[in-house]
Amino acid sequence: MAKIYVVGIGPGSYENMTQRAQQALAECDVIVGYTVYIDLVKEHFPGKQMLTTPMRREVERCRLAFEEARKGQTVAMICSGDAGIYGMTGVMEELKAEYPGVVLETVPGISAVISGAAILGAPLMHDFAVISLSDLLTPWEKIEKRLDCAAAADFVICLYNPSSHKRKDYLKRACEIVLRHAAPETVCGIARNIGREGEGITVLTLSELKETEVDMFSTVFIGNSQTKNIGGRMVTPRGYTI
Amino acid sequence: MAKIYVVGIGPGSYENMTQRAQQALAECDVIVGYTVYIDLVKEHFPGKQMLTTPMRREVERCRLAFEEARKGQTVAMICSGDAGIYGMTGVMEELKAEYPGVVLETVPGISAVISGAAILGAPLMHDFAVISLSDLLTPWEKIEKRLDCAAAADFVICLYNPSSHKRKDYLKRACEIVLRHAAPETVCGIARNIGREGEGITVLTLSELKETEVDMFSTVFIGNSQTKNIGGRMVTPRGYTI
Repeated sequence: MAKIYVVGIGPGSYENMTQRAQQALAECDVIVGYTVYIDLVKEHFPGKQMLTTPMRREVERCRLAFEEARKGQTVAMICSGDAGIYGMTGVMEELKAEYPGVVLETVPGISAVISGAAILGAPLMHDFAVISLSDLLTPWEKIEKRLDCAAAADFVICLYNPSSHKRKDYLKRACEIVLRHAAPETVCGIARNIGREGEGITVLTLSELKETEVDMFSTVFIGNSQTKNIGGRMVTPRGYTI
Repeated sequence: MAKIYVVGIGPGSYENMTQRAQQALAECDVIVGYTVYIDLVKEHFPGKQMLTTPMRREVERCRLAFEEARKGQTVAMICSGDAGIYGMTGVMEELKAEYPGVVLETVPGISAVISGAAILGAPLMHDFAVISLSDLLTPWEKIEKRLDCAAAADFVICLYNPSSHKRKDYLKRACEIVLRHAAPETVCGIARNIGREGEGITVLTLSELKETEVDMFSTVFIGNSQTKNIGGRMVTPRGYTI
């Protein structure tokens, strides 16, 4: 039976992969992925066949995986973080009907909302919203509405894709929307290069975040009204009496 | 240096832990946790000292971990899923100042929002909100407001703690709030006993979900306006042209 594992490899380092993900990569015949992610895993699987497609060729990459599986190969399709959060499982599930006999299995991974929170402290002890600021596939008005509603409901907010060359001011715009409901002193955090060289965090206020430029390797957290800065750590109390 | 690893053990099975989590448990002197989670890991670490406290003794459990660390033990404090999502990292970060010299490191794990999505299909290809229906530590009015705002903004919604003995009708009430904004045909999913014996999924409509009772080992997903049921799988399109 032709099989494709859709594998989340986590933030980057091999030890942050689950055992199940490591096994899927070890057992498969061919690993398919975006060039940057292949570079992260290839040293651990010397001699394994690797197929890559560049950025913006996501659907093509998914079809490549199905074509390999149809040839009888066991395929691992890799995504950074988790394949199920803004990843490739969606296209894979949509294409599946075109390739009868191919079985899909998603192997979960550590997404940036989780790995970023782990290095910042404990921002996600309460209800939270995850929003991508990329408007490549989503109208900006929809993103804006989600930011507005999430802030109005006092969610902790985690922002994926907070910046790119073409969207330098999007984080500032996002902060301005959140500031309609949240105090300028709201505690925020930036997690950079999670699990990779150059890993680092900054804990700052929402008004400071508004004036901060981040790069595309950053994940941004905006606290709720209860979030505290405890010694440089971002902590949202769950509500226990300490 | 006294050290505590706060470790997310994932959905249950050993292979769904990251290598880093497995290493932390292997290297520590003592594992601290809620009885049920200790039972999930103890067979893999025979002879290791294990300390447990029952449910509702969370702060006590955290202090136990700090007391052990203060004795010079390396401690692993375990949580199911990820320790950073409604887990113990918050209390640990809040208590840390009382125990100078103890170093905390959070080791991320696969939370139910990720492991549940993986078995349901691809519900989280777009912005999503995670909301706990437990009102033990949160006023119901705040939960209601978050449900209302998340639905108004067309977020995919993931519900933790959708049911308990005392809160049998909370899921129904949550669905009624979402139905103010979402169509009765909105595609929803239930993931049960993720990564454990009895694992299973149901994909159904929001109006069907409203009439369904789930148990406390379930995680519930409510799709956005674009989410589809593709052959019994819950799939939210990211927006790529297929």
